[in-house]
Amino acid sequence: MPRVKVTTELEFSAAHRLFNPEWTEERNQEVFGGCANPNWHGHNYELQVTVEGQVNPATGFVIDFRDLKSLVDSRVIEDLDHRNLDLDVPWLTGIISSAENLVVAIWARLVDGLPEGVELSKLILWETPRSFVEYTGE
Amino acid sequence: MPRVKVTTELEFSAAHRLFNPEWTEERNQEVFGGCANPNWHGHNYELQVTVEGQVNPATGFVIDFRDLKSLVDSRVIEDLDHRNLDLDVPWLTGIISSAENLVVAIWARLVDGLPEGVELSKLILWETPRSFVEYTGE
Amino acid sequence: MPRVKVTTELEFSAAHRLFNPEWTEERNQEVFGGCANPNWHGHNYELQVTVEGQVNPATGFVIDFRDLKSLVDSRVIEDLDHRNLDLDVPWLTGIISSAENLVVAIWARLVDGLPEGVELSKLILWETPRSFVEYTGE
Amino acid sequence: MPRVKVTTELEFSAAHRLFNPEWTEERNQEVFGGCANPNWHGHNYELQVTVEGQVNPATGFVIDFRDLKSLVDSRVIEDLDHRNLDLDVPWLTGIISSAENLVVAIWARLVDGLPEGVELSKLILWETPRSFVEYTGE
Amino acid sequence: MPRVKVTTELEFSAAHRLFNPEWTEERNQEVFGGCANPNWHGHNYELQVTVEGQVNPATGFVIDFRDLKSLVDSRVIEDLDHRNLDLDVPWLTGIISSAENLVVAIWARLVDGLPEGVELSKLILWETPRSFVEYTGE
Amino acid sequence: MPRVKVTTELEFSAAHRLFNPEWTEERNQEVFGGCANPNWHGHNYELQVTVEGQVNPATGFVIDFRDLKSLVDSRVIEDLDHRNLDLDVPWLTGIISSAENLVVAIWARLVDGLPEGVELSKLILWETPRSFVEYTGE
Repeated sequence: MPRVKVTTELEFSAAHRLFNPEWTEERNQEVFGGCANPNWHGHNYELQVTVEGQVNPATGFVIDFRDLKSLVDSRVIEDLDHRNLDLDVPWLTGIISSAENLVVAIWARLVDGLPEGVELSKLILWETPRSFVEYTGE
Repeated sequence: MPRVKVTTELEFSAAHRLFNPEWTEERNQEVFGGCANPNWHGHNYELQVTVEGQVNPATGFVIDFRDLKSLVDSRVIEDLDHRNLDLDVPWLTGIISSAENLVVAIWARLVDGLPEGVELSKLILWETPRSFVEYTGE
Repeated sequence: MPRVKVTTELEFSAAHRLFNPEWTEERNQEVFGGCANPNWHGHNYELQVTVEGQVNPATGFVIDFRDLKSLVDSRVIEDLDHRNLDLDVPWLTGIISSAENLVVAIWARLVDGLPEGVELSKLILWETPRSFVEYTGE
Repeated sequence: MPRVKVTTELEFSAAHRLFNPEWTEERNQEVFGGCANPNWHGHNYELQVTVEGQVNPATGFVIDFRDLKSLVDSRVIEDLDHRNLDLDVPWLTGIISSAENLVVAIWARLVDGLPEGVELSKLILWETPRSFVEYTGE
Repeated sequence: MPRVKVTTELEFSAAHRLFNPEWTEERNQEVFGGCANPNWHGHNYELQVTVEGQVNPATGFVIDFRDLKSLVDSRVIEDLDHRNLDLDVPWLTGIISSAENLVVAIWARLVDGLPEGVELSKLILWETPRSFVEYTGE
Repeated sequence: MPRVKVTTELEFSAAHRLFNPEWTEERNQEVFGGCANPNWHGHNYELQVTVEGQVNPATGFVIDFRDLKSLVDSRVIEDLDHRNLDLDVPWLTGIISSAENLVVAIWARLVDGLPEGVELSKLILWETPRSFVEYTGE
């Protein structure tokens, strides 16, 4: 059977700031600029989740788009949407909430939750409409 | 000379929450749901600013796109980008930061700043890629 | 209080064909071309619903985006999504399912369902990413 | 019968520069900056053409999207696509090729070509993905 | 010479349903939900076709975008646009018309049609604006 | 530390033509069609620059989006925006300005300019909204 990649795209709206607690406030401002604003800022994040597997001949699916969407909703979006990424999310505690660190943390939330025979292949996370990061588990 | 509308689109990333200080925290949760999260959330707001006027025969412009963009940058975007709309912006103090209230407040920031013969015509403000508000000064 | 327009965008995926039952199959092919294919074709329709009203000072809302979305979901999208517009929708019976006729029929579904003080202002319906119709109740 | 607006979107790729022949090269550089580059620059212009009329009960159309597209193709796009707007287009001769002047000139090309009962309602012309002009014949 | 990938994007509007003929209607409803609607539904499918090869020094092309577009038009789009994928397309007979199966079938239509030195590299097929599949021939 | 890809998207508006100086004007017209128009045409090019590296634990960054953007601005966009690609750009001299050749030339401009530990991974260049090329340095 052919191997096909399947992608769903979801979004969440969240507050965060970039801040290294081992540095002074001044050093944080120097390195992160406006992204270190102590009163936070926020984004509409877009997340593309790509999985990969053989096509099931009985359904024509690698995975039903609706099942993939439900999985990402329950494991990721419900925890992040309308939240503060630095205060409200247990699985982000102690992480600087850069797009790079977020995408790696989201990978860890999803990689063990997929049905047998379906592998997590790639995550893309847009922080703004012109800036995104991509992670494949390496 | 013909009258033409000219639009530029800019964006800003900000934190906010919906909160009516005359209500209890519970009442705020009831009415605003996740939008009232005490630790904030945020958005990539997109703002379309439309002005209108007669075409200047010497330039072919109603207004130079670059001048319109500069005006909106200095009067609006610099104050809102990478900020908390409820804490960091003097001209939003005391306002519930709904998209409706934001667009009306942004109108007030822009309406007096345009060159002679150019009128503010319409503002569109996207809070998410599928939700926006529109104001024409009424 | 200022009057603001509020828009939400939703989508539905449906089958249809263009067909005038008073004409022969040949005449339908002549006028409508591939759009008259007897075995149907389909679209991802995008629908923008715009309402208008005064901003409520207690909430900052004309209408909560979530309430507007729920209303359109229950009155329009649930009936049209993953359906055949010519066979499955009682309120489209006897109508040639052109984008023009659809947008007028959707208007009739929504115009009486809005809360007091909120008026239906405009509908935009995309049939393809480069073709759309717009109706304001005239 | 209800009145509906129908829009099609097309694009053309063209070279141009902004230049007022009554001014020196220096004055042109001062006013227009990089847009006055003597060796030209160019854009992928997007054009939205909106017409308006009563729905024909026999077809469900104000105008067939394909007919509207053909009309705009033959009267506008064929003359502008892969051309220099300042050198190659007889109906733009003597015009500073600003977006404002282009949209007014395109209006004049289309306003008399529509079928009876269909009126040209609005043109929107994007010069870049974040800058556009709009004209309604005033 | 460097190897470059070249992509063109096209679209088609089609009706289909998901249905396994070895199952009862009820079982189909259970597994596929609304996607099994007996009266069909439909989509505006977007197809990205990516090919790869060395740049020809005489033209600067791997393949002319227009030739790639023509090839995909004649081998794929003409057969699928404004059709029913389950009834009207000989090369889809007997296939459950899931996005996964479609993208594999489209690959087979294209893989042998390319000029010498140009290889089919990747297909991406969007079923909705937020759901797509990807195939590379594995 | 995990390896993450970081992408920024920028745009430039430029004039060009496709022309092989070893061929007659007629042969150029035959091969390149409207793209060989002697008076030029132009595009809004979109450029996606992807780099790759390990996440720095002190910042959470592979590279600050702002630094990546500045680098591409100064090494590529400033030279190409509002220019004629065939006349105004020393590092494009003698190249047929096809999208394929452009993307390879832009690669050469960027590959040596990145901070230690950050590698250029992929470039995508859109010539029109539906046509793009991709290069990974092979």
